[in-house]
Order: sequence, then C-alpha cells, then structure tokens
Amino acid sequence: MAAQPDANRPFLSAAADLLGERGFTRDPELIEPWLTDWRGRYTGACLGLASPCNTQKVAALVRLCASHGVPIVAQGGNSGMSGGATPDESGSALLLSLRRMDTIRTLDVEAGEIVCEAGVILQDLQEAAAAARMRFPLTLGGKGSATIGGLVSTNAGGTQVLRHGTMRAQVLGLEAVLADGSVFDSLTPLKKDNRGFDLKQMLIGSEGTLGVVTAANLRLLPDIGGRLVIWAGLGTIAQARQLLLHAQSEAAGQLEGFEVIPAHSLAAVLDHLPDARAPLQGRHGWHALIELVAEADEEDRLQPLAENLLAAALDRGLIEDATIAASETQAEAFWLLRDAIAPAERAIGPAMQHDVSVPVAAMADFVEAAIPQVEARFPGSTAIAFGHLGDGNVHFHVLAPPGVVRGEWERNQGQAISRFVHDLVTRWGGSISAEHGIGQVKLKELERLGDPVALTMMRAVKQALDPKGILNPGKLVRVAPANGSA
Amino acid sequence: MAAQPDANRPFLSAAADLLGERGFTRDPELIEPWLTDWRGRYTGACLGLASPCNTQKVAALVRLCASHGVPIVAQGGNSGMSGGATPDESGSALLLSLRRMDTIRTLDVEAGEIVCEAGVILQDLQEAAAAARMRFPLTLGGKGSATIGGLVSTNAGGTQVLRHGTMRAQVLGLEAVLADGSVFDSLTPLKKDNRGFDLKQMLIGSEGTLGVVTAANLRLLPDIGGRLVIWAGLGTIAQARQLLLHAQSEAAGQLEGFEVIPAHSLAAVLDHLPDARAPLQGRHGWHALIELVAEADEEDRLQPLAENLLAAALDRGLIEDATIAASETQAEAFWLLRDAIAPAERAIGPAMQHDVSVPVAAMADFVEAAIPQVEARFPGSTAIAFGHLGDGNVHFHVLAPPGVVRGEWERNQGQAISRFVHDLVTRWGGSISAEHGIGQVKLKELERLGDPVALTMMRAVKQALDPKGILNPGKLVRVAPANGSA
Repeated sequence: MAAQPDANRPFLSAAADLLGERGFTRDPELIEPWLTDWRGRYTGACLGLASPCNTQKVAALVRLCASHGVPIVAQGGNSGMSGGATPDESGSALLLSLRRMDTIRTLDVEAGEIVCEAGVILQDLQEAAAAARMRFPLTLGGKGSATIGGLVSTNAGGTQVLRHGTMRAQVLGLEAVLADGSVFDSLTPLKKDNRGFDLKQMLIGSEGTLGVVTAANLRLLPDIGGRLVIWAGLGTIAQARQLLLHAQSEAAGQLEGFEVIPAHSLAAVLDHLPDARAPLQGRHGWHALIELVAEADEEDRLQPLAENLLAAALDRGLIEDATIAASETQAEAFWLLRDAIAPAERAIGPAMQHDVSVPVAAMADFVEAAIPQVEARFPGSTAIAFGHLGDGNVHFHVLAPPGVVRGEWERNQGQAISRFVHDLVTRWGGSISAEHGIGQVKLKELERLGDPVALTMMRAVKQALDPKGILNPGKLVRVAPANGSA
Repeated sequence: MAAQPDANRPFLSAAADLLGERGFTRDPELIEPWLTDWRGRYTGACLGLASPCNTQKVAALVRLCASHGVPIVAQGGNSGMSGGATPDESGSALLLSLRRMDTIRTLDVEAGEIVCEAGVILQDLQEAAAAARMRFPLTLGGKGSATIGGLVSTNAGGTQVLRHGTMRAQVLGLEAVLADGSVFDSLTPLKKDNRGFDLKQMLIGSEGTLGVVTAANLRLLPDIGGRLVIWAGLGTIAQARQLLLHAQSEAAGQLEGFEVIPAHSLAAVLDHLPDARAPLQGRHGWHALIELVAEADEEDRLQPLAENLLAAALDRGLIEDATIAASETQAEAFWLLRDAIAPAERAIGPAMQHDVSVPVAAMADFVEAAIPQVEARFPGSTAIAFGHLGDGNVHFHVLAPPGVVRGEWERNQGQAISRFVHDLVTRWGGSISAEHGIGQVKLKELERLGDPVALTMMRAVKQALDPKGILNPGKLVRVAPANGSA
C-alpha cells in the first residue's frame, strides 16, 4: 500500500495522458488545500490530484486505478464533517476531484427535475432552480462549497429534512462509476420500477466506498410564495417537543423547519457576533426557531396562522414568549443566530461534537437525561444540544471546562467523552451519525457499537461491489477491521 | 436439487420438531392451494409448508434450511402477479408461509407509526389505522389477501402512488431474517441515520431473494376528512396528460389519484358488470378517474375546487364532459369501474398483460405510439392501456383476435407479443415491470433487456448475501443464468 515512486510511474504517466494538463496534477501547491478535511482533523497525502471533465474520463480513470491497484478517494467541495474525503497519510491513493464536472445537464420545470453533474455546488443548483421559479428543498450551512456528488454520497441532511427528507428523498436518478470502471446509469427517473434491487439506494450515503457518483437527477418543487419565521422562548425542551406537535397538528402543510437552541448557545452566538441581538427580552431556557412557508398566492395565510398557533401555545403554557420576524431581513437574522452556533461554541473553547439521532418522539427525553449524565461523568464540562428536534437529530456538544489547553484536552478526554455519548445514544436506540456520516472519524465507533448483523451485511456488499478494495479504503466500512489503524 | 425423500428425512424431522403441528405440514390437501400462483400460470411442488409463529422460529428455520441446503420460498397472501412466491416443480424447496405472523405489534398515533408482522393483511392494517383515526396511504385490488411482508418484498404500488409513493416510501423500519438465519433488525425508525448503506432499501422489493421480511414499521397519516371523485370524458390520452398537469397545478395538495381508462375498457366493464352504468352520456375516447381528498375540517374546499378545476379544463378544451360523484356510494361505483377492468378484459378473451412504466411526461406519447405499432405487428389484436397515468405506469394489454382458442393463442403468440412490447418500453427508457415485480414470469426478459451493469451488481449482491443460493432461487436474479430453465 505504501507509495513507491518507481512502482507508480506507469500509472502516473497513464493518468496524465488520459486526463491532460487540466485534469491531472502532482503540484504540491495545487494539491495541498485538498489534503486536509474541513474541520482540520485529518491531513493526508496522495499520488496526485485527478480532475476529470466528464463521466467517461472518470470511468477510464477508475479502470486504470483498478488495473494498477491504486486506491481512489473521491472528493467534492471538501466540506464533509467526518474526514470521508481525505486520503490517508500513506500517499498511495489518488485524490479524485469531481469539481470540474459542474454542468447542469437539464432542468425540466414541468417534470420538476434537474440533472446535475457531481461537481455542481449546492448554491448554484438552488440559484438555477430559483431562476426557473422552482426550488430545491435541501439546504445546509456549507451550501457555498458542498457539491451534489458529496451531498448524495453522504446522504446530507440540513434544515429542511422535517418536511422534505434527506438527500435520499431528493434523488430521482443516479449515475455512478463502479469499482471496475463500469458506468451505472439510472438517471432516467421512473416513478415506479420494480426490476429488482433499487441499486441507487445503495450508492446514496455510501461515501464513495461502492462507487463514484458522477451525476444525479434531483427533484425540484415549485418555488414558495413566501415564508414566515418565528422565534419562541420556552422553559424546557419537553415544551419544545409539545410545541412541535402543536405546530405539526395546526400547520402540517406549512411547517418547513423546527430547530431548538438552548440558552447557552444563544449567549455564545450573541458574544460571537457583535451585531447580533436576542430576538426576545428576558432569559429563556430554550428557544425554538420555526419556519412556515406558503405556496404562491397563499402567503396571506401565514401571518394569521402563526398568530393563532402562538396564541394557542401561550394559552397552553407551551411557550413563555414569541416573536414573528417582521421582514425578510429579520428572518435572515433569526436564522443566522442558529447557523452561527457551531462557530460561536468553537470560539469559547474546545468541545467534543456529536451528531446524533434517536426516535423523534424520544429526543426531548434523551436530551434531558443525557446532559446531567455527561456533566456528572466529566466534571467541569458543559453539555449542550441544539438543532433539528423535528428530525430527532441534535448536535450534542460537550464543552471543555474553562481554562483547559486546546488540543491537550481533546487528546486526553475526547475519546472517553465520545464513547460515553455514543453508548448513551445506542442505549436509546439511536444513531451515532445522524447526518454527518462515518468517514474516518466514526469508523471505529461504528465497528464497536453497530449491529453486528448490519456490519456483516455491509462488509459483504462492499466486498461484492469493490472486491479489490480500491474505493475510499479505510472509510465507512472495512472488510477486515484492523485494530490500531485509522 | 431434486427432492429425495430419504435424503430429506433429517431436515423434515427437524423442521417438524422446531415448528410443531400448527407450524409444519406435509398434508397435500393443506398445501395444494398455495402451490399455484394467483394468476394460475405456475404450479409448483414443495417439501412441506412451514408456518412459523414468530421471528425467532423463522430464524431457526432458515438456519436449518441453510445447514441442509434446502431452498426457501417465502409466501404471504399468494396474490402476487409474477409467480414470485410459487416454488418450482422440483419439490426441493420449503414453502415458508408468513401468514400466521399476523400481529400488529404497536400502533403509535402521535408518531404516525404502526409495526406489523409480515402476515398482517393490508385490509386489516387499513382498518386498524382507521380505528385510530389514521390511515395507511397505500391500497390495491388484492388488499383482502395481500400481506405486509409480500407488499414490502415486492415494493407494491397501487392507486395512491401519485401522492404517497410506493411501499418503499411507507417503510420506516424493517425486520428480516437473512440467508444465514441472522435477524436484521432496523425496526426503530430514525428520521436521520447515516451509519452506512441503507440496508433495508435492498430488502424492499427483493422478492425474498435476499432475506425473509418478518415485520415492518410503516408510516401512518392522519385520516382524511373527506374525498371527492371525478369522472371525466376526454378525446385523447394526450388531453388526459394535460388534465393531470392542470390538476397538479391547481390541486397539488388534494390530488390523491389519477387513473385513465380507454373506451374499450369501459365498454368491457359495462358488459361484465350487469349493474354498472357509464358515469357519462355519449362516447369518449378516454376517461379520467380523479380523486381529491381533504384533511379533516377542510372537506368544504373540495366541491368548489373540483368545480373550478373542471370549468377551467372545459374552457381549455381538455375534457369533453365530466361529473362529480354525488355520494360516497357513487364514488365507490366509479372506482369499481376502474378496478373491474382486468377481470372484464379477461372475460372477453385471452390477452397478454404488461405492467410497464416510462417517464411520467412520456407516457401519453408512448401509449399513442405503441398501440398502432403493436396492432400492426400482430394483425387482429387490440392493444389497450389503462391505469396510473400520474405515475407513468400503465397496464398494457394486448387482446387476442376474436375467435382464437384460449391457451393456444398465448402459447403461440404470447412470447413474441411480450418481447415486442418490452422492446418498445425499453427503447422509451422505461421499465418492463413497474409494480408487479419480476418473479418467474419476467426473469428471462430482465436478463435479456436489463442494463448489464445493473444485472452484474444485482448478481454480486445476491451472491454476497445469499452465497448458498437458498433464498427463492430462480426468481428475480440468477447468479448464473441458465438457458432453458425457468
């Protein structure tokens, strides 16, 4: 597996011939930005950076890699959270960037379909949809860099899952290059097709370990007519759960997002963003950020709907106070408070971050039970949970005690804290990775806590579809787990 | 593979011990009804009929079969359309009925979830949901016999796919016994879970070739407040397509079903059902059956919505005439006309039936192009298409010329006709099985026309998850396709 320059010369020369100057480089300066993951936790090395311009080139490249036994790490915007697109330190792998494949092949308004190549950036897709008076119903913080290929390969989530589902629910068709260089083409969307296993479902969320996604046919919805954003102050997360049920019952067709924010996180954001201000007076233990949307010509329904919803919630004692954003600017400001939590918490000090889910109905209870257990087990730490309550998915962060040395604390305490949180989540029937995937960072934890039956199935499928093990080795699934290695 | 009584004695004795008298029989009289498929095209034989009462027994039985190399044919209500649950004639397989596992384990109204064992009959599920003021948004003609296990294993469709998707979209969690007898348990529904490949997606629609579904967690929706059923007469199927787009644009949130019926099929039904009468005066080339539904307390919206929709459609020349069912009884009568097409056409004479899909936007054009091509190629035949226009899925029947001998015509002409239709569908980018699956009946056609890349993937997955080939051999996917055998 180690990179041996001489042994690799025939491969490198063939790759350079295949891809040309724009498509292949070994220039360390050009490669360097792509060797470290977004969160800065992993830095790897590679044989070279390939940037093919179309699916046929990807297929030819994968065939070349297969024949030379060269591992392939596919990469999109390099904004993944789990190191899944970062090569290991051996330097034996080829880094395969899909960013040059950034063409929107077709956009069909009547059918509500858009075919994007893997390198199309989420924000560009959103803008193309908007220009056609349509919308793509998935968004997330990294939309300016995240690519369609990466979003599909990691089954990305975001803030609209409550109503529209994860990336899996948006994918109508898929094109991918398999481990032997063959092209799996199921881009044509058939609403009903029972010709055997739904193979594209296996590729979605497989983090480049079963194939390299080269294009996807995604669903578009008619653009909304308007939105309305509510900020509510509550006493407990259990009340937030009741408020969610209330909103689902009263405004099911309009409820687009429901996020919860604890007092600690709001305070951190207000410290972090000098121009930000709290939407409500007074202190509240928890906050709920609720987005309602209306179809075109139905915008007028939103204000009375929101007012009735909040009046009833106040009556029933579910909320302590609430405000409705008076303008789109204010709505954006509310969302900024939510989106700034992660960087704001990071600015305070080191933290161990966990992206976990439990059944939706159990999430409030889980948070209330888990926080004191974690804080008792790790004295001085502060546990916070925020995020997608309506999806049963919170970001569960354990903040270091004040005054610890950044880097040292994570090294000494990090693993024990994460194991403790993951054990808890597993006991609650939950997932140690709700939306960020496994990548490198959670591979050992998945092997430790995952259902052995599911792990066995995954290994069998991986072995069957990538018998040489050249697709993103060391990520998500290892056919033969090795103790000690990443 | 041939059944050798002596060689099988240890297996049979162990199976009888494991399952007890109620759980295992070799009585030909008890077994006979389950050896012929619903359409009467295949009759097989088996070693015995196993009817385990719980998942643990299924697991133990599969382990027993694995150790003795005994093939397993899982069966639910035996109402499948493709012979997928009928054993072959060798008699070497065990018929595994899931019908005794008919417990609804849990029903959670707040979460909108119901956990059904594999043998729960669809109609019983629907009634249990209704009793809790909820509904299960999938239905089909065989609801009185079709079981949850069969519906999941065949990714069943039906008449509500337009709005709610196929069975795949209803499955929140799954429990299945794998080829080695291990139990895959992902019944706990997590709205977000990115711990690797979504394995349950592989089991859905795999027709018992990768595992035996023993239970499913299914989504429930709040019960509707009311429905309204429209019958419209149109000149062409292209107008039906325009009417569908019109309805989707004006009544997206209410549109639950959109079926098309040609004049020939309506006439056949009126001949077949003595009490039935045509909803409209005069002759129309095509008919559309449209169902609109409203949530509780919104029923009053339906009548004006329907009237406006039809007035605009008349103005735009999309329809020739239309009527709105004046009562629930009349609504049922309209639906009966649709549901009786298959038996009515069968009563006229022999027909080759094809369950095909193409992209939704292309279906009207496909039907208009395919009918004259088929009739020209097979003189005297009549081609008709009816069904789920909104899903891009029609049932494409080729009726024999008058006077042919039933049985003989199918034997002489059937294969050529089906190949011709399947070739056409494939050229249009469609599927030779939209909702009925592959089973035995379409296995060779799938091998002939399927994408070789997809077939190779399917075989690799099958080989990986069922290396001994004991799960429903000869159905859906053959690791080594054999010429001549079924």
